[in-house]
Amino acid sequence: MENINDWLLEQVELVNACVARYLPLKDNTQNQLYKSMRYSLEAGGKRIRPILMLTTFNLFNQKSDRQILPFACAVEMIHTYSLIHDDLPAMDNDELRRGKPTNHIVFGEAMAILAGDALLNKSVEVILENRHRMGLSEDTLLSCLSALMTASGTEGMIGGQVMDMFGRIVTQTQLAHMHQLKTGALIEASCHIGALAGEANQDELDSIISYARNLGLAFQIKDDILDHTETTAMLGKTAGSDIINEKTTYVSLLGLDEAKKLLNSTTDQAIKSLAPLGNKGERLKSLAKYLLTRKK
Amino acid sequence: MENINDWLLEQVELVNACVARYLPLKDNTQNQLYKSMRYSLEAGGKRIRPILMLTTFNLFNQKSDRQILPFACAVEMIHTYSLIHDDLPAMDNDELRRGKPTNHIVFGEAMAILAGDALLNKSVEVILENRHRMGLSEDTLLSCLSALMTASGTEGMIGGQVMDMFGRIVTQTQLAHMHQLKTGALIEASCHIGALAGEANQDELDSIISYARNLGLAFQIKDDILDHTETTAMLGKTAGSDIINEKTTYVSLLGLDEAKKLLNSTTDQAIKSLAPLGNKGERLKSLAKYLLTRKK
Repeated sequence: MENINDWLLEQVELVNACVARYLPLKDNTQNQLYKSMRYSLEAGGKRIRPILMLTTFNLFNQKSDRQILPFACAVEMIHTYSLIHDDLPAMDNDELRRGKPTNHIVFGEAMAILAGDALLNKSVEVILENRHRMGLSEDTLLSCLSALMTASGTEGMIGGQVMDMFGRIVTQTQLAHMHQLKTGALIEASCHIGALAGEANQDELDSIISYARNLGLAFQIKDDILDHTETTAMLGKTAGSDIINEKTTYVSLLGLDEAKKLLNSTTDQAIKSLAPLGNKGERLKSLAKYLLTRKK
Repeated sequence: MENINDWLLEQVELVNACVARYLPLKDNTQNQLYKSMRYSLEAGGKRIRPILMLTTFNLFNQKSDRQILPFACAVEMIHTYSLIHDDLPAMDNDELRRGKPTNHIVFGEAMAILAGDALLNKSVEVILENRHRMGLSEDTLLSCLSALMTASGTEGMIGGQVMDMFGRIVTQTQLAHMHQLKTGALIEASCHIGALAGEANQDELDSIISYARNLGLAFQIKDDILDHTETTAMLGKTAGSDIINEKTTYVSLLGLDEAKKLLNSTTDQAIKSLAPLGNKGERLKSLAKYLLTRKK
């Protein structure tokens, strides 16, 4: 198999090109809004969610992963809007994200709120505008859109942010539930949409969902470990912020060693979920291993 | 024809019941979020947009206006989220809306931002969750959703808010353009969706769009006049705020008398647009006249 880093770089470039195409800058009275949206979208994210979606789609449909690029782009827009709003002074009040000043530091609070709103709105627009080109049945398209919006809503990502901001999180069960909503739901939806659009059967869908759930959990444990062990320069966001904000994390609950063990076993579980898919699951396996060892 | 006030009251109750049904309070970790969303949704708006949508739909489809209630509810959710975000300290910093403390005064800034995000997200969820019940073809449903999201996005409502916050508005043309985006687009979309779902033909659609454009403009001129002439107690929001914020309005540009003349001629134009529809347009005519004389 090809080198995972080369392949990932190629995938990131594919996603970046689609982001640029679906969100052109405009020379009208709203151009500052477009600049603000693009600023955060192009700040150099890992593009994990769109890459998971494209990879899952390709696993079931060998034709072209470019077919569902509008959905891949939409999920990245939703992820980016959530980061812009989470960073606001009224929320986490963060000034650094992906190694750059946060949106409201550059564009001001009002524009950052509007840019977030606009990215959520645009994510649906991009899917609808390109609906005839994607070659999906209308029923499949609507199911995919529904999976996306449920994952980003009150019983998904937004619900998780509410728990993180206002909930009392003390136990590991509460912590896992909060992260399943805040981060897990959108990661799961990315794989779910890839499988739906690729016309996976029910058994295949079950494997993918189990993989995505475990991967989402592993992703968050890794984030907690990195926040504890890495520098701000390496992370591109303020390191040690969990301790400063007195947040319950896997490291604060379990200690560093046990958190690492849980990360390994959860990643193993994600990989095991792919067993029924045979060789087809190789790239998703590589992605899980890559996320296990990532440095930011 | 029946009394317009009785009919309007019935319509408002229909919309209120649908809002409550599509956004049940939940007894989970996010229940404060649901309360915050419901607080603003139930603060007693005029429900102009959903009523325009239902009335337009009924004009072409006599069966039941309840068929497209999910869309009617969605447009009100989008309107409400825009009010919550517009009222934030970083935006217009308003403390009073519909006669009650604004969302962030009651729930705090962070929750108000999240409640706004969640209402936009929920508006799409409500449509998708009820898609099989509406009895629309998938193609019509997607066209209606597309009209809604374009109207609420960067080239519609959000774009208008950016112009209002950051644009230099000096001329009447600039003022009209800003309002066409900020308020007009969603009013137009409400009528547009009603006509699309009711399977209006192209000529009928043109009449409806022309009506809605003029009505949206008249609505804004009336708002400017009310801000100038009415009390805070009557409006349920801070009267005279345009003068305090040094905003360009139809009254500041034209003077009160000329603004009233423009309001009358624009309302006439809206009503004239309905002529090709014959008697079928009676209710939309009544609505235009009602909006001309409203007191808040």
